[in-house]
Amino acid sequence: MKVQVLVRLKAGVLDVQGKAVEHGLQGIGFNEIANVRVGKLVELEISAGGEEEARSKAEEMCQKLLVNPIIENYEIRTIS
Amino acid sequence: MKVQVLVRLKAGVLDVQGKAVEHGLQGIGFNEIANVRVGKLVELEISAGGEEEARSKAEEMCQKLLVNPIIENYEIRTIS
Repeated sequence: MKVQVLVRLKAGVLDVQGKAVEHGLQGIGFNEIANVRVGKLVELEISAGGEEEARSKAEEMCQKLLVNPIIENYEIRTIS
Repeated sequence: MKVQVLVRLKAGVLDVQGKAVEHGLQGIGFNEIANVRVGKLVELEISAGGEEEARSKAEEMCQKLLVNPIIENYEIRTIS
């Protein structure tokens, strides 16, 4: 089962990369933008009996390796 | 309008970060995984008259700054 993990910096955490992208975009004329945030997209295949199991494994991976819970949030999506 | 841009390395391109994550996960006992790929998640707010316009601006930002078309693909999602 294909699983997508979206990892984002928590709301209060300064997103330096996001700021750089925001300034970069404004610098080339995109002034109608705001609140740019840059996160990680981790995609993987998990052998699991079903969606429930794949999701719970992904959850465990997030807690053990993929995410820094002090500064990051995550969202798990399963794709067929 | 909130826009999500998912940036992924193209299929043939070696994903060093993905490999590192894959080995890391396997090293702590997750052997049921494969094809780990790490990409970027760019989220931003775009002032636009509608979804169509926001999407087309995001498309332009991808082509001009956010994406390296030689090695990366992108997907744009609009959220409300």
